[in-house]
Amino acid sequence: MVIVFRSDASEADVQTVIERVTEMGLKPHISKGETRTIIGCIGDEDRLRDLALVTMAGVETVMPVEKPYKLACREFAAGPTVIPLGEGSVGNGEFAVIAGPCSVEGREMLLETGLAVKQAGAVALRGGAFKPRTSPYSFRGLGLQALELLAEARGRTGLPVVTEVMDTRHVGLVSRYADVLQVGARNMQNFSLLSEVGESEKPVLLKRGMAATIEDFLLAAEYVLSCGNRRVILCERGIRTFERATRNTLDIGAIPVLKAETHLPVIVDPSHAAGRRDLVLPLALAAVAAGADGLMVEVHPDPDRARSDGDQSLSLDNFSALMGDVTALRETVILRRRAALIA
Amino acid sequence: MVIVFRSDASEADVQTVIERVTEMGLKPHISKGETRTIIGCIGDEDRLRDLALVTMAGVETVMPVEKPYKLACREFAAGPTVIPLGEGSVGNGEFAVIAGPCSVEGREMLLETGLAVKQAGAVALRGGAFKPRTSPYSFRGLGLQALELLAEARGRTGLPVVTEVMDTRHVGLVSRYADVLQVGARNMQNFSLLSEVGESEKPVLLKRGMAATIEDFLLAAEYVLSCGNRRVILCERGIRTFERATRNTLDIGAIPVLKAETHLPVIVDPSHAAGRRDLVLPLALAAVAAGADGLMVEVHPDPDRARSDGDQSLSLDNFSALMGDVTALRETVILRRRAALIA
Amino acid sequence: MVIVFRSDASEADVQTVIERVTEMGLKPHISKGETRTIIGCIGDEDRLRDLALVTMAGVETVMPVEKPYKLACREFAAGPTVIPLGEGSVGNGEFAVIAGPCSVEGREMLLETGLAVKQAGAVALRGGAFKPRTSPYSFRGLGLQALELLAEARGRTGLPVVTEVMDTRHVGLVSRYADVLQVGARNMQNFSLLSEVGESEKPVLLKRGMAATIEDFLLAAEYVLSCGNRRVILCERGIRTFERATRNTLDIGAIPVLKAETHLPVIVDPSHAAGRRDLVLPLALAAVAAGADGLMVEVHPDPDRARSDGDQSLSLDNFSALMGDVTALRETVILRRRAALIA
Amino acid sequence: MVIVFRSDASEADVQTVIERVTEMGLKPHISKGETRTIIGCIGDEDRLRDLALVTMAGVETVMPVEKPYKLACREFAAGPTVIPLGEGSVGNGEFAVIAGPCSVEGREMLLETGLAVKQAGAVALRGGAFKPRTSPYSFRGLGLQALELLAEARGRTGLPVVTEVMDTRHVGLVSRYADVLQVGARNMQNFSLLSEVGESEKPVLLKRGMAATIEDFLLAAEYVLSCGNRRVILCERGIRTFERATRNTLDIGAIPVLKAETHLPVIVDPSHAAGRRDLVLPLALAAVAAGADGLMVEVHPDPDRARSDGDQSLSLDNFSALMGDVTALRETVILRRRAALIA
Repeated sequence: MVIVFRSDASEADVQTVIERVTEMGLKPHISKGETRTIIGCIGDEDRLRDLALVTMAGVETVMPVEKPYKLACREFAAGPTVIPLGEGSVGNGEFAVIAGPCSVEGREMLLETGLAVKQAGAVALRGGAFKPRTSPYSFRGLGLQALELLAEARGRTGLPVVTEVMDTRHVGLVSRYADVLQVGARNMQNFSLLSEVGESEKPVLLKRGMAATIEDFLLAAEYVLSCGNRRVILCERGIRTFERATRNTLDIGAIPVLKAETHLPVIVDPSHAAGRRDLVLPLALAAVAAGADGLMVEVHPDPDRARSDGDQSLSLDNFSALMGDVTALRETVILRRRAALIA
Repeated sequence: MVIVFRSDASEADVQTVIERVTEMGLKPHISKGETRTIIGCIGDEDRLRDLALVTMAGVETVMPVEKPYKLACREFAAGPTVIPLGEGSVGNGEFAVIAGPCSVEGREMLLETGLAVKQAGAVALRGGAFKPRTSPYSFRGLGLQALELLAEARGRTGLPVVTEVMDTRHVGLVSRYADVLQVGARNMQNFSLLSEVGESEKPVLLKRGMAATIEDFLLAAEYVLSCGNRRVILCERGIRTFERATRNTLDIGAIPVLKAETHLPVIVDPSHAAGRRDLVLPLALAAVAAGADGLMVEVHPDPDRARSDGDQSLSLDNFSALMGDVTALRETVILRRRAALIA
Repeated sequence: MVIVFRSDASEADVQTVIERVTEMGLKPHISKGETRTIIGCIGDEDRLRDLALVTMAGVETVMPVEKPYKLACREFAAGPTVIPLGEGSVGNGEFAVIAGPCSVEGREMLLETGLAVKQAGAVALRGGAFKPRTSPYSFRGLGLQALELLAEARGRTGLPVVTEVMDTRHVGLVSRYADVLQVGARNMQNFSLLSEVGESEKPVLLKRGMAATIEDFLLAAEYVLSCGNRRVILCERGIRTFERATRNTLDIGAIPVLKAETHLPVIVDPSHAAGRRDLVLPLALAAVAAGADGLMVEVHPDPDRARSDGDQSLSLDNFSALMGDVTALRETVILRRRAALIA
Repeated sequence: MVIVFRSDASEADVQTVIERVTEMGLKPHISKGETRTIIGCIGDEDRLRDLALVTMAGVETVMPVEKPYKLACREFAAGPTVIPLGEGSVGNGEFAVIAGPCSVEGREMLLETGLAVKQAGAVALRGGAFKPRTSPYSFRGLGLQALELLAEARGRTGLPVVTEVMDTRHVGLVSRYADVLQVGARNMQNFSLLSEVGESEKPVLLKRGMAATIEDFLLAAEYVLSCGNRRVILCERGIRTFERATRNTLDIGAIPVLKAETHLPVIVDPSHAAGRRDLVLPLALAAVAAGADGLMVEVHPDPDRARSDGDQSLSLDNFSALMGDVTALRETVILRRRAALIA
């Protein structure tokens, strides 16, 4: 924590702050310049984080120095986290595509989609059973029935299934059917839910909230990690900005920033960022080029008749074409990286 | 729903959309201009809302016409909703101030605050038992113990208590102690929680999410209303923007927009918007002048030593001064309104 | 400037930065903690501002300490700046309302508006001669003819006139007719224009850019001030956010923040923030309550037939009513402030 | 234009609007539904654009149907615009990299950079002579001297030069030295400057403003096009959002959206979006994968000692490596596209 004093702060102001900091068990380093004084308090910054320092007399600003997340931090890990996902895995160069319908609408459409995405190269099947919808009057998913269908689809396709859990009371239920628990963007700061999935034995796919900074995002992951569940997949899916030409603004820069900050795998959901079918491919390719560890893509056998998110769902053929492009791009990226290592 | 076609859309494209719309039970009105065709589908727009129309061949954009919220809509109510709050009430010109500490930290501080805010004119006491904190390492509230202290404070002050509920599993428990259930900004789209408090008999204080449009906010209220709980207080508390000089950007324009759109009472939390003690008063006065039905203010007997949000908490004296200013301003606003009605 | 090193920075990394800082003529203060080192460089920070420090080996972040604006800073001024405006003035408790049509559309409408706003209590007349329009096909103002009409209106009403200048080549011309030069939101970082009006002898009304932080805003003012023109009026007019229910989001918190940061007067344009006639009054009152030194309001004799911004223009009657409310509110605010000083 | 009436609008309200629309020369198509009426006015929407319709009695919302830009619109062009750039060209599959220092700091550094970027495959040399700086105290470029150095560098390298023009008065001067006139993000809505470069014979590189929607961006291009200059290169460089981990948020989705909307070439500036050297490569690759027609990259022989933007400038070696990766990625993308065309 660095505490910057106003140029008109009195000696007594500085002294009072020093006492407060010392009282909390930290050692202040004082730097007096010609125009102002600053105090650096290096150490267990968490003790100061909740203190009202910025409103103390003479204080101008307070700047945190330590990262507020610890377990999510790259510095605190032996190496990148790799999370197995069916026959594939995600993280540290292992690339995984998760695909499937926005909502599980029935047996036939789910199986058809599951088999098609598997054939195209996806390693996991997504499908919503409990759907978070902005309006209470929209289709909110088939619930338990969808979970059963997902389990059946896993049996038929061999693909692990990823589905969203929206309620702390459902974590146990969903865990019995799903292989990966998804926490949606709207629940990214539902701290009760984060703690609950943190107690689960299933990997967690955590989507970034629409107003979440990268720091907020990593702190949400920290909730899960601090409850003992070390298998968290981060998913960038676009943030809310003034631009409405796309449903959300995909924060492509978040991928390399996250890869530098954390050891956790980082995947991208181009479907929700785009909101429009024709933009899914370019966003998916951009994510791969920027270094994402995987993708989550909405696919539907008949997108025009989907009960939710049809506008942004790919047909089975479109998805297959996307996988071809993604694979070609990945190979180029990998070859270049190898060449760079040799050189 | 208005469907706008591209200028190069074919007759067949238009026909296909007409069929889809008719199939859903709506009657399309076709307008052919020189450059393009538009179709207006007036009626039960909800049937179209989840359809993938924008990606159909020849379609350029799809514009909703009907409001997606019904029960929250001013047009659907007999008049403004007024919600009793202890000896006061909120809505339709009735103004209510809710005040108290961010977190309940102990008996003494809570009672001292409760008595002081009552004397200054607050009609309800706020205090956090379960605290949503961005970091898992921050103080997260005293939980059940805090609920018991709140109940005791109600007994001693006569003020109804307002406290946040963060978990669907706690709605029953919190309802036994609290008079108003608060749903925080980070849970504004926790739809399970909205449904659960919608089943409760207690009024709900719903805070606007940081990335929530006014439409999203009213749809969140609609969740609660549609479950049968008609007593929802909306609380504007700032949205997230690029500006970081304040903790959030208070969307002052949301107050008159909401008052025009909905019959529900609209209050403002200047403390979270400001994030800094010295900005709370000007923001509170601005909210009153813009037509808010009430305020929610963080107050602490010793803000510099608060365990959370100390930077933005008012001292008891500051709060008392704020109440004086608020009252004076309210009187002026009311007098002017009466004068306008007579003239 | 505070330079924070990574926890894995080497001694050599720290030494290299110390050398660079010393080379620039600053004295580094080194604080070594258990986990990391920080260096405070207090003094003429401007010398470091353009250096690439954050990308030097071992450096994690670089935090500026000094304010980048000097002349705009409250600390650097003897007291609040007061700028005379016709028979009134703006700043330090002096409150001024500037009103008039978005565009000067003709002699009759301008004179009618000028006389009406004067009678209602405005101290200056606004009117656009050169209009910045998002589309090249929109009405872009009458240019020189409008300037002549404004001068005539000044003669007839006694009100000083405020008009926008958009082009460095027009500063001389506009200065011959106008009493105050307005720099619009879209030109807030047109640094050539800022310098040019900085050379002028006329006061400058500087509107905040849609994406400008408060720091950017004050640095834009600093351009004008540093060219020798010390009479700058800052005008908050809303920023661009994700919310589209209002044309812009009025940053009401910017008013007290600016008042604390700078000695310059701060006024508010509720018309552009609102974008809708019915929201202008509540936003204007909120601005007054939050401590603004004045208002700039769009007024038109027949708003429904205005050639630009009709949706947000007040009729002459509406403006007169607004002035009544504003005056009543001002008196209350002033009375309370006096009472507070006595107590 | 579609005009939607409130459900409580009277017949007279509808009639008044119909008259206003007819008066403007448009033919209204009326659709009466059970709950509300809508009017579609197809045709020359520009005549309605500046009218105050939304505030007329009974009107709820007004939705534009026609695109406000015409010349920039894909529909209005025979095919994609290709702009020659030295030995290369940009647009319609032709890919161009423009590279060079943020500011021209001297002869030696400029020539060294020019020769290096040419060898690495860049087709044009960028370099700032007049620099828009947020603070008036930052280095603002060498001006005329820099223009002369750029001309010299063109002679030595054979690369056309791209440089920013900030002032309408400098367009003639800069045009005598530069091959492409750059309009910076802060001047994207400096309409006088847009008109002035629209009169020039040089191609214009137009950067997106920090708060500009894609529609605003295309309307800015429309200004240039409507003055007769048909050679505009659009440059996405990041928008301002709440996220500060990157200097700006690169709107990667804007690339495919722009490619669908306009015939103009679209390039990306990863340097300003990133603000940090280590993020330039992933953002550049993402831009290529998303379909950009080119890149503009800041390169400096000694970035740590650059006088501006050193943090985000690549060294000559880094740039050369980036070009290798970009080329490899481009080849993959092109091969896939060809394969898709054959299949």
